[in-house]
Amino acid sequence: MTAAEAKRTARRRARRGGAGAGGGAEPNAHLRVPWITRRIPTYDLLDEESLVRIEQTADRILAEIGMEFREDAETVRLFREAGGEVRELSKDVWNIRFEPGMIREILRTAPSRFTQHARNPANSVEIGGDAVVFAPSYGSPFVMDLDRGRRYGTIEDFRNFVKLGQSSPWLHHSGGTICEPTDIPVNKRHLDMVYAHIRYSDRAFLGSITAPERAADSIEMCRILFGADFVDENCVIMGNFNTTSPLVLDGVTTAGIRTYAAAGQGSIHLPFLLGGAVSPLTMAGSVAQCLAESMTSCALTQLVRPGAPVVLASFQSTMSLRSGSPTFGTPEAALGSLVMGQLARRLNLPLRCAGNFTNSKLPDAQAMSQALMSMMSAVQCGANYILHSAGFLDGLLSMSYEKFVIDTDLCGALHAYMRGLDVSEDTLGFDALAELGPGQHLFSTAHTLRHYQTAYWDSALDDNQPWETWDEQGGSDMATRANKRWKKLLDEYEAPALDEGIDDGLKGFIAKRKEMMADAWY
Amino acid sequence: MTAAEAKRTARRRARRGGAGAGGGAEPNAHLRVPWITRRIPTYDLLDEESLVRIEQTADRILAEIGMEFREDAETVRLFREAGGEVRELSKDVWNIRFEPGMIREILRTAPSRFTQHARNPANSVEIGGDAVVFAPSYGSPFVMDLDRGRRYGTIEDFRNFVKLGQSSPWLHHSGGTICEPTDIPVNKRHLDMVYAHIRYSDRAFLGSITAPERAADSIEMCRILFGADFVDENCVIMGNFNTTSPLVLDGVTTAGIRTYAAAGQGSIHLPFLLGGAVSPLTMAGSVAQCLAESMTSCALTQLVRPGAPVVLASFQSTMSLRSGSPTFGTPEAALGSLVMGQLARRLNLPLRCAGNFTNSKLPDAQAMSQALMSMMSAVQCGANYILHSAGFLDGLLSMSYEKFVIDTDLCGALHAYMRGLDVSEDTLGFDALAELGPGQHLFSTAHTLRHYQTAYWDSALDDNQPWETWDEQGGSDMATRANKRWKKLLDEYEAPALDEGIDDGLKGFIAKRKEMMADAWY
Repeated sequence: MTAAEAKRTARRRARRGGAGAGGGAEPNAHLRVPWITRRIPTYDLLDEESLVRIEQTADRILAEIGMEFREDAETVRLFREAGGEVRELSKDVWNIRFEPGMIREILRTAPSRFTQHARNPANSVEIGGDAVVFAPSYGSPFVMDLDRGRRYGTIEDFRNFVKLGQSSPWLHHSGGTICEPTDIPVNKRHLDMVYAHIRYSDRAFLGSITAPERAADSIEMCRILFGADFVDENCVIMGNFNTTSPLVLDGVTTAGIRTYAAAGQGSIHLPFLLGGAVSPLTMAGSVAQCLAESMTSCALTQLVRPGAPVVLASFQSTMSLRSGSPTFGTPEAALGSLVMGQLARRLNLPLRCAGNFTNSKLPDAQAMSQALMSMMSAVQCGANYILHSAGFLDGLLSMSYEKFVIDTDLCGALHAYMRGLDVSEDTLGFDALAELGPGQHLFSTAHTLRHYQTAYWDSALDDNQPWETWDEQGGSDMATRANKRWKKLLDEYEAPALDEGIDDGLKGFIAKRKEMMADAWY
Repeated sequence: MTAAEAKRTARRRARRGGAGAGGGAEPNAHLRVPWITRRIPTYDLLDEESLVRIEQTADRILAEIGMEFREDAETVRLFREAGGEVRELSKDVWNIRFEPGMIREILRTAPSRFTQHARNPANSVEIGGDAVVFAPSYGSPFVMDLDRGRRYGTIEDFRNFVKLGQSSPWLHHSGGTICEPTDIPVNKRHLDMVYAHIRYSDRAFLGSITAPERAADSIEMCRILFGADFVDENCVIMGNFNTTSPLVLDGVTTAGIRTYAAAGQGSIHLPFLLGGAVSPLTMAGSVAQCLAESMTSCALTQLVRPGAPVVLASFQSTMSLRSGSPTFGTPEAALGSLVMGQLARRLNLPLRCAGNFTNSKLPDAQAMSQALMSMMSAVQCGANYILHSAGFLDGLLSMSYEKFVIDTDLCGALHAYMRGLDVSEDTLGFDALAELGPGQHLFSTAHTLRHYQTAYWDSALDDNQPWETWDEQGGSDMATRANKRWKKLLDEYEAPALDEGIDDGLKGFIAKRKEMMADAWY
């Protein structure tokens, strides 16, 4: 053992012993779960009549305007066979219209809930129903931290974020393109990303969607990891696909969707809606369009392989009236998310929705004000898979180290929130008041001693000390504490064990695939 | 006109002209209201059975443990006459028990909704039902800003916060003890506080509750302002009273409550519950106790003057398991607030609940993360009067200039949130998509042009610009922008007109009252 390793081991022991030591003494231990079972009701914004009007508008969009498909004749063939009315607009561009109800009918074979398996079976997650899964943010080209500012993401950043995710008990899923590893050629980076998820995390993850062959590589790596038979029978990877709003599905996307579905793997179908730019400014219309696009994209999977796991998705953003920039974490988008939750349940499909969105360029008051506005809507609307739960800054352009740990801490608080309020003889605590009576503090009552370890969420980042103590300790803000924390977590990180034969198999596959292709940088 | 005045007038004109000029061009103009009419449903956490169990526990607390009353024989007499079972514990200390249902019966005469009149009739507010009123934070001994740090509050700070409140369209009420003006003797500061609310704001406000004669002074000043007859017939002032938890009402409090009620004025009845210290750690028990204490305190008003306006109240806080300090903006407290909303509606009483709570000592990420966790519960639970809507920092010990303007901006966003999501032919926006079809941006559609001024909340403090623009402009965080903003708002502030005769009357009353008393500093 090297000196550095010994130091690390000692730290780990100290950490595990923790304050109070003993099995259950770790703060928040009672809240740890592989995924959350939501025990709070959904917050249902709209009445039946309004929901029906939105659904009818979605149907009308598909029947009268239709969706445009590009450069994927096989997808067009599948939809034509299913009853879609196909018009060829030009070579490789088709408009397809669907009679009201047709898409819903196709979606009947999609599961309302499914398991995505992790390589550590204890970390497999449920997606759908009352299950809730938090995953890191996805797709930023830049990364940020307080020391080095904003810069392009690298594979080292990518690995760091996988490690930070793995080290947080409040995320359940390793995510996908946590940041773009821009130092790796575009046509090869998916191999390094999938490998990083497998090597540095033992949770479920997302694969590549940027080209059908990269989707296939991602799935092939899972066959090495899980065995081909297991992969054929079970969902072990998902792809996160974007429509090209308004109302377009390009061929790379539909071919990727078909690749995941054919392999029996999961897929998420997201219209990225920016009101006024690619969807109506008014949220009712944006939600109707979201439903139309996501349903249609989901339906493709069922034509390829009925029963393939599929996730409806919603990403509502708004627009700054001053600059035309997209805005995140706004009240209108939060309302849109609440409605999407209702619509997903009526379709009986799992939902991906919202996350800790913000436009802020720093982990400051704006960042968390917008983040909570957005995230509470995800939690309350009944979303099942909440991508962008950690790290989102700068309108999704930057992944922030500090915000990542601030967000995961919030995710911990949301574990407590989603447990709901338990009403029982014990929690009603009549005895606690009766024991000493009016005017007496309850610190020493049997009820307090029985509950004090589990009654309240204990944040790792909030400073809840008296002002004097806080001031004596340097008067830090949360961003500064977060900066220290991510460094400590990375320093203490331990990779989960991985079978050497599998590791060699993965490395061999990656080497072979990289050898086969010249580097491409676009 | 002095040079300074001329400069100020020019600034005002520029401001009013604003971007785009013209009547409705001011951002968010469509959201301005004297109070909010909530168009979103309440978020109902618990089922009927759980609510009944909480109510039964509250009844059992009052029947088997009882409330303790101190040093106010008149209040004891009133409750005895109403059927309370009185036991004298010692000289001036009584325990009173109430049969299940008795307190609810007494509360039947309390209005479910009432108007609190402002000196500017356009600013009168409704309290109860679907009406929602935001008021500044209340009761901090310290004030903070980024330039001068933490210090004791003064009457100058108090006036500044009244002015900042008045200048925000997103607050509806001037509040009460916005901060303690510690440079004025304790027995005289109520006169200066009430005068500041009257002079520097034309909204409704809260009066003194720290002694019955100070309550009487506050009401007397309203008689000078509104006329004695008007005050006798209408609610023009409210007192915000705290029980002494657990289960005690001291004589200063009950005498103050009787003073407001006898004058037909409003009162708010708040148990300040810190779980594990003065209420059970488990939230179900804390909520049951809150209901028992607040109901009983409210009931006193109806014994004094049936029909007196009264507000049930809830302030749930939790405890740091490490330090024993009270914690604010925690998930458990948010759940407690949601349940209090349900219980208040079942009692048919207006509710004061939560606010922008936090333990943070700076206007940072923690401040707004905790603030939103708390504030969203207030907005969603159906609370009617939300004190602590602006400025709350440092576990209520400090009033922050920066957080005040950050919070009022959030209050603006909540105006948009509480409008809900409108579903109509127009907002469904089918035409917006049909106009140009798939793949085409919607910037120029008739639908976009028709809605762009009113579709989205436009924050005065969020930086939603691209990173490059933000960076070029200095790369500020929200706290820094807030620091500039409160100074600008104070600089631009104009006092609303006040009749000179009334002003002289108030000044004369204050001078006379101050002359009658020696300074007291405790």
